[in-house]
Amino acid sequence: MNAGELLSLCKRRGFIWPSFEIYGGVAGMYDFGPLGSALKDNIVAVWRDVYKRGEGFVEIDSPTVNPEAVFRASGHMDEFSDYVVHCKECREPFRADHLVSDLHANPDTLDAAALKGLMVEHSVCCPDCQCELGSVEEFNLMFKTSIGPGSNRAGYLRPETAQGIFVNFPHLYRYNREKLPLGVIQHGRGYRNEISPRQGMIRLREFNMMEVELFVDPDDKSWPRFPAVAEETLRLVPEDGAERELSLTQALEGGVIANEVLAYFIWLTKTLLERMGVDGGRLRFRQHLKDEMAHYAMDCWDAEVLLSYGWTEVVGIADRGCWDLSQHAAWSNEEMSHFKRYDEPREVERVALKAKYRELGPLFKGEAKEVARLIEERGPEDVSGGVLKVEKDGAELEIPETLFETVTVREKLAGERVMPHVIEPSHGLDRIFYTVLEHAYRREDDYTVLALRPEMAPIKAGVFPLMARDGLEEKAKEVFALLTAEGIEAFYDESGSIGKRYARMDEVGTPWCVTVDYETLEEERGLKGTVTVRDRDSSEQRRVAISDLPVTLKSLLKGADFAKI
Amino acid sequence: MNAGELLSLCKRRGFIWPSFEIYGGVAGMYDFGPLGSALKDNIVAVWRDVYKRGEGFVEIDSPTVNPEAVFRASGHMDEFSDYVVHCKECREPFRADHLVSDLHANPDTLDAAALKGLMVEHSVCCPDCQCELGSVEEFNLMFKTSIGPGSNRAGYLRPETAQGIFVNFPHLYRYNREKLPLGVIQHGRGYRNEISPRQGMIRLREFNMMEVELFVDPDDKSWPRFPAVAEETLRLVPEDGAERELSLTQALEGGVIANEVLAYFIWLTKTLLERMGVDGGRLRFRQHLKDEMAHYAMDCWDAEVLLSYGWTEVVGIADRGCWDLSQHAAWSNEEMSHFKRYDEPREVERVALKAKYRELGPLFKGEAKEVARLIEERGPEDVSGGVLKVEKDGAELEIPETLFETVTVREKLAGERVMPHVIEPSHGLDRIFYTVLEHAYRREDDYTVLALRPEMAPIKAGVFPLMARDGLEEKAKEVFALLTAEGIEAFYDESGSIGKRYARMDEVGTPWCVTVDYETLEEERGLKGTVTVRDRDSSEQRRVAISDLPVTLKSLLKGADFAKI
Repeated sequence: MNAGELLSLCKRRGFIWPSFEIYGGVAGMYDFGPLGSALKDNIVAVWRDVYKRGEGFVEIDSPTVNPEAVFRASGHMDEFSDYVVHCKECREPFRADHLVSDLHANPDTLDAAALKGLMVEHSVCCPDCQCELGSVEEFNLMFKTSIGPGSNRAGYLRPETAQGIFVNFPHLYRYNREKLPLGVIQHGRGYRNEISPRQGMIRLREFNMMEVELFVDPDDKSWPRFPAVAEETLRLVPEDGAERELSLTQALEGGVIANEVLAYFIWLTKTLLERMGVDGGRLRFRQHLKDEMAHYAMDCWDAEVLLSYGWTEVVGIADRGCWDLSQHAAWSNEEMSHFKRYDEPREVERVALKAKYRELGPLFKGEAKEVARLIEERGPEDVSGGVLKVEKDGAELEIPETLFETVTVREKLAGERVMPHVIEPSHGLDRIFYTVLEHAYRREDDYTVLALRPEMAPIKAGVFPLMARDGLEEKAKEVFALLTAEGIEAFYDESGSIGKRYARMDEVGTPWCVTVDYETLEEERGLKGTVTVRDRDSSEQRRVAISDLPVTLKSLLKGADFAKI
Repeated sequence: MNAGELLSLCKRRGFIWPSFEIYGGVAGMYDFGPLGSALKDNIVAVWRDVYKRGEGFVEIDSPTVNPEAVFRASGHMDEFSDYVVHCKECREPFRADHLVSDLHANPDTLDAAALKGLMVEHSVCCPDCQCELGSVEEFNLMFKTSIGPGSNRAGYLRPETAQGIFVNFPHLYRYNREKLPLGVIQHGRGYRNEISPRQGMIRLREFNMMEVELFVDPDDKSWPRFPAVAEETLRLVPEDGAERELSLTQALEGGVIANEVLAYFIWLTKTLLERMGVDGGRLRFRQHLKDEMAHYAMDCWDAEVLLSYGWTEVVGIADRGCWDLSQHAAWSNEEMSHFKRYDEPREVERVALKAKYRELGPLFKGEAKEVARLIEERGPEDVSGGVLKVEKDGAELEIPETLFETVTVREKLAGERVMPHVIEPSHGLDRIFYTVLEHAYRREDDYTVLALRPEMAPIKAGVFPLMARDGLEEKAKEVFALLTAEGIEAFYDESGSIGKRYARMDEVGTPWCVTVDYETLEEERGLKGTVTVRDRDSSEQRRVAISDLPVTLKSLLKGADFAKI
């Protein structure tokens, strides 16, 4: 298959539409139509079910427009950029690294000068009009705006939902009664002002993310549910590039995955994706190479799926260490650490400075107490050349060592402050959406079936009268109303032959079709009408009493075997 | 009560947090915390249940960043603005109309010169530092950004979700098999770059909307479900200002509400809000005054709720006529109309131009057919001074009337193209969210209860061990796991006295609390353990078998009487 075929189906049947088509379109943006919007919601629902209900994590929802301070701390102001080059003639912009992708093994590691050098050397010109290219410039990929009138306060559209969780850490930590672990999820829009987006839904300017930030004790990366899945296996491509199938235990013992909690969430990602309908045979986990990984990350794995575009990242699962919270703590001066209470108070010895009050009194009079406090806040390591420098009211005092002494104190500590570490499974919703469709896509001759898992299907049941006459259509509408009232997404259709109607439902992934026929009307006189239920995947049909239909469909949705209904 | 008291509860308990507090905050933005995010989702779920499941409307999801063309057509480029004035000294910006609100009855109808005149006349100065104010300037309230590198393509954050529906009308119309009525819903972020936001969640820079666009035949504003609700009553404040309680029939017959479909959706809005927990006694519908209503609107009503801020709009329900589609059709040159098929083809007489082929042949040779076509495309009204001007290959030909004649033709028409009208119920989600909280807020002495409707409550059941010992806590955790597995949002708490735990749940609106006590353990030996269930609103308690608990809570959620469980 090719992506174009599937995208054309998606457009025709109302899954996704390229945005703003009536105005010539905007590259890198899609609308979710009626069926796509429902499929997207079903993906979010599964993710929530796994993390919120299953793991007990909490969910928040924060703004998409953020002030600059957030991205100074997160590093996006400095790091979130690509190199752009414009054609001097047609003014079309291109990603510089894409233009030299055949000329260098890792073009995204090159800087502006190296990229330009390579282009000049190989006479690279505009791919559209073959004219000369201009200079290579760095382009920050955040959409910029300003908050309030006057352009004095810069704002940016968030490149990820994660920062909304980090900046709220103090609130979330209190909400969790100052305990770890603390798991927080957020889904919503992310933005990346791509230079020249291609590849359908894979590289978007406005996209949807589902992010999970798990804050853990840095000294304890075990996970209570790990033992239950320790022998499950994963298809791994570690940084040495040699793909292998390992159990979680093997991966941990061999030092392939950094720690237990990370291993658990890699496994959870696998089950999550498979439940959504990603084909397990086209799913692997690839470890980031050292030069690919953010400098602060302790380990990072991408869930990659095989698509017509090639192997594509859909989820990243990283141990980000204390980077995010440390950065925000440093830039905001807010407390972001966790007070880790010891099981029993610990007695510790500490070398400290002790002010000589008798000497200080005559020298500083009413201020002596304050000066003593300033001395005792410091430690022996701050004394240099027999002098301790302290700041008081903006001025620097030089305190000679005749005014204090070095003593050993014994203290009882109830605990210590530690900076939590962050485990982050970050999901690209649009890419998962596209994968669910591509992995469900079956085409034989001119017949197309989307074999979506029933939980994912936008429509659970098509409801048809065999023909639109003789009261069949009234009865079918009653059945449709019954299912709808029971919260089962149904679609009523009386147009065209019954075969065409089945085909239309198969093409959008509807698992079951319900048909009202003459037998139904016949039986109805005896008050026990039945309808046929057709199963998409087996094409089998069964007769089911109308009154049992909601219960039957609900049990099928929960995984009951069609052959046994 | 005052809003501050409630907002403080909301912040303390994790409903909402002022955004970016660690960086000094950004006015007009809020984060939804764990409880707020759940409440918000519950509001969206009810709205969807009413419109998608109940009315059969379809849902879409479109981008928040839009190209300029969209807002040229919608009028937002020209109209979506306020007047701003800056203090010359402290540079603080203010809304000009707010500064003169005591000096004029309708300050928002004044232009820049009138506003400045009024300020000078009354020596209005900066409310913050009492210094002189600068000039009054128009400020467009859309957040502006640019799409792609180079700032050549302007983009704006959408001020409403509605435009995403209008620009997709051709797709949606085909999805609906080119039939009317067609109902489409969308929820998501909207943005308004307020000059100086105040009033908590009422006036936000980034907010959440739930919009409904119903496209109807302009000649048929009846509604099939109307008769069933015709005698229901509404509290109306028509444009004459005289509040009265009228049935829908009375409102229509008296010409108070413009048409049946609009009346139906006003009534539906009432039931929707009441189901969410808005107090019917603090809800009214106010008609827009002529000078308040958009020039194209045919009728417009605001659902207003009484809050501590005064009467506040939470939903607007308007008959927008053909404005939106006509505008986009004109600016995009795309077909946005509906082909309305007649029940039977209609025979009509039309006066037309008919080319004289015999005269054209010798004159135009091989082009004669084309010229004839160009003539017959036009009508008698295009003939002026005995000459018909037509454009051919970029040149204008003047065709003398000797080359054509005026004839009467009879045609059979299958139907006609009409521009659909739009009925729009547009919901301010954040305002509804705040209203649901304020109308549920009860405080007696120091005891606070949020009497949220169970369907709205973020947590449905608190689960406690009577004390955290003797195995009570293990059993309570089992009960918690049982409810969670059944999809009932539960919260486990063992900290503090049982009274404190009840109080904490009452304060966040949890309708029921389940307590495991010694009787539970006693009975468990006989395998039929019961727990106490306490009802928030009556404070009554009942014992329920653990095995029945999920079913009991689900039936309570559906409205069963606690006294009868």
